[in-house]
Amino acid sequence: MPSDIEIAQQAELLNIREVALKLGLQEDSIEHYGRYKAKIDLAANPELKSRPDGKLILVTAISPSPPGEGKTTTTVGLGDALNRIGRSTVICLREPSMGPVFGMKGGAAGGGYAQVVPMEDINLHFTGDFAAIALAHNLLSAMIDNHIHHGNALGIDPRQVSWKRVMDMNDRALRQVVIGLGGKVNGQPREDGFDIVVASEVMAVFCLASSLKDLRERLGNIIIGYSYAGQAITARDLRAHGAMTALLKDAIKPNLVQTLEHTPALLHGGPFANIAHGCNSVIATTTALKLADYVVTEAGFGADLGAEKFIDIKCRKSGLRPDACVVVATMRALKYHGGADVKMLDLEDLAALQAGLANLEKHVENVTRHYGLSCVVAINRFSHDTEAEIALVQRHMQELGVKVVLADHWAKGGEGAIDLAREVVRLAEAGGSTMRYVYENADGLWDKLRKVAVNIYGASDIYAPRRIRATIDKLQADGFGHYPICIAKTQYSFSTDAAQRGLPHEHVVTVRAVRLCAGAEFVVMICDDIMTMPGLPPHPCANNIDVDDDGRISGLY
Amino acid sequence: MPSDIEIAQQAELLNIREVALKLGLQEDSIEHYGRYKAKIDLAANPELKSRPDGKLILVTAISPSPPGEGKTTTTVGLGDALNRIGRSTVICLREPSMGPVFGMKGGAAGGGYAQVVPMEDINLHFTGDFAAIALAHNLLSAMIDNHIHHGNALGIDPRQVSWKRVMDMNDRALRQVVIGLGGKVNGQPREDGFDIVVASEVMAVFCLASSLKDLRERLGNIIIGYSYAGQAITARDLRAHGAMTALLKDAIKPNLVQTLEHTPALLHGGPFANIAHGCNSVIATTTALKLADYVVTEAGFGADLGAEKFIDIKCRKSGLRPDACVVVATMRALKYHGGADVKMLDLEDLAALQAGLANLEKHVENVTRHYGLSCVVAINRFSHDTEAEIALVQRHMQELGVKVVLADHWAKGGEGAIDLAREVVRLAEAGGSTMRYVYENADGLWDKLRKVAVNIYGASDIYAPRRIRATIDKLQADGFGHYPICIAKTQYSFSTDAAQRGLPHEHVVTVRAVRLCAGAEFVVMICDDIMTMPGLPPHPCANNIDVDDDGRISGLY
Repeated sequence: MPSDIEIAQQAELLNIREVALKLGLQEDSIEHYGRYKAKIDLAANPELKSRPDGKLILVTAISPSPPGEGKTTTTVGLGDALNRIGRSTVICLREPSMGPVFGMKGGAAGGGYAQVVPMEDINLHFTGDFAAIALAHNLLSAMIDNHIHHGNALGIDPRQVSWKRVMDMNDRALRQVVIGLGGKVNGQPREDGFDIVVASEVMAVFCLASSLKDLRERLGNIIIGYSYAGQAITARDLRAHGAMTALLKDAIKPNLVQTLEHTPALLHGGPFANIAHGCNSVIATTTALKLADYVVTEAGFGADLGAEKFIDIKCRKSGLRPDACVVVATMRALKYHGGADVKMLDLEDLAALQAGLANLEKHVENVTRHYGLSCVVAINRFSHDTEAEIALVQRHMQELGVKVVLADHWAKGGEGAIDLAREVVRLAEAGGSTMRYVYENADGLWDKLRKVAVNIYGASDIYAPRRIRATIDKLQADGFGHYPICIAKTQYSFSTDAAQRGLPHEHVVTVRAVRLCAGAEFVVMICDDIMTMPGLPPHPCANNIDVDDDGRISGLY
Repeated sequence: MPSDIEIAQQAELLNIREVALKLGLQEDSIEHYGRYKAKIDLAANPELKSRPDGKLILVTAISPSPPGEGKTTTTVGLGDALNRIGRSTVICLREPSMGPVFGMKGGAAGGGYAQVVPMEDINLHFTGDFAAIALAHNLLSAMIDNHIHHGNALGIDPRQVSWKRVMDMNDRALRQVVIGLGGKVNGQPREDGFDIVVASEVMAVFCLASSLKDLRERLGNIIIGYSYAGQAITARDLRAHGAMTALLKDAIKPNLVQTLEHTPALLHGGPFANIAHGCNSVIATTTALKLADYVVTEAGFGADLGAEKFIDIKCRKSGLRPDACVVVATMRALKYHGGADVKMLDLEDLAALQAGLANLEKHVENVTRHYGLSCVVAINRFSHDTEAEIALVQRHMQELGVKVVLADHWAKGGEGAIDLAREVVRLAEAGGSTMRYVYENADGLWDKLRKVAVNIYGASDIYAPRRIRATIDKLQADGFGHYPICIAKTQYSFSTDAAQRGLPHEHVVTVRAVRLCAGAEFVVMICDDIMTMPGLPPHPCANNIDVDDDGRISGLY
């Protein structure tokens, strides 16, 4: 079988104009970015608001193994299949980050015959949204240090600036830095650090804003730190939010591309679900619901991370309600979570598989019982899956009353996910989903963490050092207790320790740091050793990426 | 008169498709970025190569006063005027940097009725080229520190890494930093710093490359520092150049926009002329010459900076030859260089004006005698210029045998620059230009500096501390002596001291730092206190920029 990029490069794409027309969007309501990408100009489509909403399908997964389980691939395949069975469908994905593209995991545009295209563009700059978000973030950073340098009228305490800088790159050397060295002309020296763009609060604000106006308001609310007098300092105090909004005014329009089978796809925003809230933008999802019968969207990593935040943050803020949920599993990940060596995942190992099912069971329990959603398990097929393995999983889940569907969209495109599509339609039309939050607004911040940790992660307790507890108590006292929480933790385990695979018991969720996001309106709790700036591996993907004289890219996957 | 942004927002733009058609470029040979911007796909236009070249007109200026002298405005007005008198014309400009946009100077898309549009897009992200250049640069940075972290097989000496990081922002606090703090997991601590993107060697390579293939080759040649064993380490050694090229493969295509009068404009690349080589891309200029009878292009700041580098770097590398040159002057700048207070430049001051003419004279001498170009002086008119002032300048220059033309394109558009256009055509058709370099390849690096300093800047001597001289000697010995030099110095004076206005005498050009650019194929000599990362002023432009609920930007100029 050809590589992902070969399949993508051989595909015959429709001009994006034709994809838009399928959605009823005329030429003057989209803005082209090359032939195969466009932004949807919502201001040019006011009649959309009065249309009824389509059904919303959430794709989530078991805890991943390091190569990932094909959640995006399944989202694409399911979208293509729904179109094939006569349901007009739009898929909604987050945009890829260049960190993984040049690092270890590679791109994030699906794989095999279930991809969004043009895959090179999507995986590299796309329409420039991440660059805009990075600049808006870093403009605020520059304005903070500039304010301190030019007399510091607001009395900003350089020791209490919590607003870092960002870059869309895996660059561990920037995690912890000292800036402003070199004497008076270079400003006030202080400790600082860089996060990857997907962890930026500007990214979260971008993804949660309901309009340009709401975006501007939220950017103004961002708290960058505290004054010597203990006052919170906002982006509005620095008069930075207008210019930040100007930098984002085009980015905030949803991006339209297509799958290999010409299913329309909105890719917009891209927070990681391990270090951020992990869902594509509210604007894209709400727009998509007006454009199709079905919208298939993805929440990052396992159902403990992206799906929990999808429900507790994105749905809570926006009023969205999923009609059904797909939990993606692979034999590979089940064996990994059953203790198999990561190098041996392609070999049959029924014992490991049996042991790993505990991970899938817990995710299914979370989705159905805690999130209140009807769900189907989709087995994303790999060529080395054996009949015995598949039979084991099907039998086991059937005993629990959970339907398992095999999906072969990677090899066959939408045709390979027809069964999955039919089951999804059955669930959505049956109307059995009654979404529930894991915690209520009125719960305290610490109690919110406990509810997620105990109910969703299966933890026995939660812990934070005294200093962190004091910060949480201060945020509660300062009036931020009604915010949802956004937990940053490893994606590889229900616990905060990546090494604890499967379904760990008696684990304690440990909070290392807390960040108030007053623009995004949530409180980030960073657990254990999760990093908000990744590093590159010894042999980064970047080493293999190249371009020939005709501009054809190779080595991107 | 309305503000620049009001004029720009009221303009009726052609769909960029129609602008392309005027140039004979069909729909399938451009890539749209919204309705009013496009990239020209050169691969789709192979027949261009066989077309004859148009005439090339270089627009330069006297030494500026802080607000700038309207060189871009004149370039735009002249282009519009040439079209009005029946010469098909394309203008070529650099892209604006967000540093000045959010800092002090504002945007760089012209002004009044001589602008390129859409001005907000052009001044903000435009088509994403700067973001691509920044990412390509910073990817190499991340790969350097990652290589050192993971065993350092190449033996890179962290003390000798000269490759910094970049950001398209005025951010003084990033000039000098320490990275890699926080222990083993965050890499090797070392000194580092950020330049503004326009100073990046990737920007220079981008602007000097003749093709995608040449771009890749040059990126591979970049020397990032030295090993413990004293070996130069290249981007190729780190296997970074393929991925860097992939990041630039779309950016390298020239951007097409239009003036308010629908004259086609290629805006591409954007090195500053004070800290870099200051000219738009070779690819854009050579493309434009195939598309029109006349190409008007600009080289940044005064004729001592941009124009010298245009001749000695850009023309030398590309074979380009200007047919005539326009030296832009304003009453304001002449009075400034005659010693007038910067707050009093709008008032008549014949004494200061008379004194300031020495600056203009020297620039004209440089252009005609040292660069060998026929030239006309264009007075960019302001409403407060007096008859007496204009008469004084005209009389004085006439005595020197230099033609002075008044140009009022700011208030009147192309109509205001008809006289200038006629004189430019006369000069270009007369064929009196015989371009000369200031120095030859065979001159040593130190001698090259001396020739520019003495002949162009009117310096009496040049100086570098012993350590810097040793670096220059080493570069000479290492085989880089045939490279041109790229002098970084203040734009406000012929000398390296911004306070020395007019025509300073007996000044010494002092080199503070030297950088080898083995990809761009020149040696940067940084003089006196010029900074490769600017800072924001006490009241940055960013404070005034805002967006209303309909997405209309205000406060950008």
